[in-house]
Amino acid sequence: MSEPLRVAIAGLGTVGSGTVKLLQQNAGALAGRCGRAIEITAVADPDRRDRGFSVESYAWYDDGVAMAREAPADVVVELVGGSEGPARRVADAALAAGRHLVTANKALIAHHGLELAGAAERASVHLGFEAAVAGGIPIIKSIKEGLAGNRCSRVYGILNGTCNFILTAMREGGREFQEVLAEAQVLGYAEADPTFDVDGIDTAHKLAILATVAFGCRPDLGAVHVEGIRHISPVDIAFAEELGYRIKLLGIAALTEHGVERRVHPCMVPAGAPIAHVNGVFNAVVVHGDFVDSLVQVGRGAGEQPTASAVVADIADIAAGRASPAFGVPLAALEDPPAVPMGRHRGAYYVRLMVLDKPGVFADIAGILRDNSVSMEAVLQRARAPGEAVPVVLITHEAEEAAVATSLAQIGGLSACTEEPRMIRIEPF
Amino acid sequence: MSEPLRVAIAGLGTVGSGTVKLLQQNAGALAGRCGRAIEITAVADPDRRDRGFSVESYAWYDDGVAMAREAPADVVVELVGGSEGPARRVADAALAAGRHLVTANKALIAHHGLELAGAAERASVHLGFEAAVAGGIPIIKSIKEGLAGNRCSRVYGILNGTCNFILTAMREGGREFQEVLAEAQVLGYAEADPTFDVDGIDTAHKLAILATVAFGCRPDLGAVHVEGIRHISPVDIAFAEELGYRIKLLGIAALTEHGVERRVHPCMVPAGAPIAHVNGVFNAVVVHGDFVDSLVQVGRGAGEQPTASAVVADIADIAAGRASPAFGVPLAALEDPPAVPMGRHRGAYYVRLMVLDKPGVFADIAGILRDNSVSMEAVLQRARAPGEAVPVVLITHEAEEAAVATSLAQIGGLSACTEEPRMIRIEPF
Repeated sequence: MSEPLRVAIAGLGTVGSGTVKLLQQNAGALAGRCGRAIEITAVADPDRRDRGFSVESYAWYDDGVAMAREAPADVVVELVGGSEGPARRVADAALAAGRHLVTANKALIAHHGLELAGAAERASVHLGFEAAVAGGIPIIKSIKEGLAGNRCSRVYGILNGTCNFILTAMREGGREFQEVLAEAQVLGYAEADPTFDVDGIDTAHKLAILATVAFGCRPDLGAVHVEGIRHISPVDIAFAEELGYRIKLLGIAALTEHGVERRVHPCMVPAGAPIAHVNGVFNAVVVHGDFVDSLVQVGRGAGEQPTASAVVADIADIAAGRASPAFGVPLAALEDPPAVPMGRHRGAYYVRLMVLDKPGVFADIAGILRDNSVSMEAVLQRARAPGEAVPVVLITHEAEEAAVATSLAQIGGLSACTEEPRMIRIEPF
Repeated sequence: MSEPLRVAIAGLGTVGSGTVKLLQQNAGALAGRCGRAIEITAVADPDRRDRGFSVESYAWYDDGVAMAREAPADVVVELVGGSEGPARRVADAALAAGRHLVTANKALIAHHGLELAGAAERASVHLGFEAAVAGGIPIIKSIKEGLAGNRCSRVYGILNGTCNFILTAMREGGREFQEVLAEAQVLGYAEADPTFDVDGIDTAHKLAILATVAFGCRPDLGAVHVEGIRHISPVDIAFAEELGYRIKLLGIAALTEHGVERRVHPCMVPAGAPIAHVNGVFNAVVVHGDFVDSLVQVGRGAGEQPTASAVVADIADIAAGRASPAFGVPLAALEDPPAVPMGRHRGAYYVRLMVLDKPGVFADIAGILRDNSVSMEAVLQRARAPGEAVPVVLITHEAEEAAVATSLAQIGGLSACTEEPRMIRIEPF
């Protein structure tokens, strides 16, 4: 057996603690699979509280940057979090010191992945971020290596467990977003400031990474269209159910003849699609390749143990000498196809209006859609309440997003329309 | 870039042809991902018919063994099929000549994987069989590398698309096994001799391989308990539906305190379990690891293109220098835990009897179960037809297989029991 691989871990929060526990508990099995032992030599965290595991044999640093620079380590594991500040400084210091870098930090990779991968390439070390996307699901490895023979045309998924928990609970209980969010916060599934999760930003980070790995294109977080789930209401969930759909927050990237679509927004997916049955905090990723067709992976997208599993997969690859380039190909080989703007997206749309139940309203709405070349597949009006506002649902045929947006702005301006129109894109998986 | 990796392919049937097409069509992308080109140098097949792709630049051998021995190749790909005969001779010749071996042949690996891996280890070459299990799903890589940090306790799945197609069609159409089998044969989903598929043998091969990779134990095909789907009837499928279950043919391996359980048989799985929604020819594999919890992968388990995708994943790993040991660890590190005999299995059971509807029958049945320490959770009798045979369904609490088998033999001997009792194991996923 070769010399042990020496690992230094920055950040002993949830994932850092899980990683230490995994490396301690499963050390023997890991050594067997890697052909060498994996040894923690140093840890860094300003908070030296007891975490329930032994740290006596590790050098303890208060400062992760100092550890990344000085500790006797082959690999630095960055589990500090955040795209800037300490996390970035740890990452930069590790690579500058010629150490491999493993991170679970999606914000860091989505914002600075290209620079970090460049620094790693120049230093001839590896950069691993399996844990940054979909927690325990080894999706980065599956795409880069397991589907190496494929040209991928599409990758999408449920990438944020908090949102999926909220949408699942809203559907199952017919409850409001705010009420379920508050419950998720109590359960620890949502942060005190839930913005990153519920506004789709976390999903956007992960999607930007997935698109890069699947299509071999340069990461472009700015090109991701992002909408969250705050405006999803029980009314829309009930209509979706009636129409044979489930509402999921998806990150979707597609390589089309026009370029790369990257979008994060609530979707109506057919109730029969595999992804429709992924509930609660679970994540799912679906990849389409030209030879494999579709591959679906479902697992835990967050949490101490699943995320540690992914962090250690990267460490194990480095230990065994089988790590692949950060984005699957050398950076120089990454392509830079144009980003398709959201206005150019084509699809079917669910639109819910609140309109006064009076003669002539439908004619006005239908006229606006006709003038924008948006054709309707179905119109649903459930209640009748002459003179009062009632929900009306339109399902469009495939149409261009820009035309739908223009139509909705015009419909929203009708005096009979009492609320801003709500729109949810329908995905035909 | 390094020298091209030279590949020789034995067997130009469906998968062989798909592999050639993939290596031709996606050569550029593959070279980018592997850091070197992958070049086919030779092919072997006794049938020289035109397959719709160019073979002019390849040396053509009628005899795969001669090709494996003589062709200028770094990797030999065995796509001949069958556990003995030509396939085995090609594999042996390739390894004896010091070439890497990639195969899609589950029978070969299930029967002779240990010897082949030993020969590969001695020759310092790689043995890859990603395509042998679950077609396009990169499950071998996911377990060996993506879940490297985990101790796996259970792996199970829908591993045979033919059986899943048949069971799905039986359920959706309320049809008989024989009728659907005939249709599957016409559609090309089932062989003229369907034994390997419908009697569970193909699933057993794949399960034996999965258990080895997941638990790091020596392959033991003989230890797999195997039952097929021929005796599944529309009556049982209807009862399953009523009870909230779906019937699937599963391969299940579990590492318990008593050793390794390996079993292939029809199961009733809860209608809400992810695997219950995997229909038609799709495959699914679920792995439980101590850190990742459960990971589900769903995809196409057979066919020219998905299987070629998996074959090429192995070739790509060899090209990139990142292939891992055949079973995840060096052979000497494989463990040999005892096999748990099927009689020791514990679980809940669905039992369907055809009994004469007359007083006292239930008392006899209940007495037999009590005497064998099998307790009942539910009894269902739908029809009443005094003096005639009616179906009666029993659901047991968790019981030992041996006790259930004894009970069923005794119940089957009752004069009121007009048919052999049918039993389907209930899996609580």
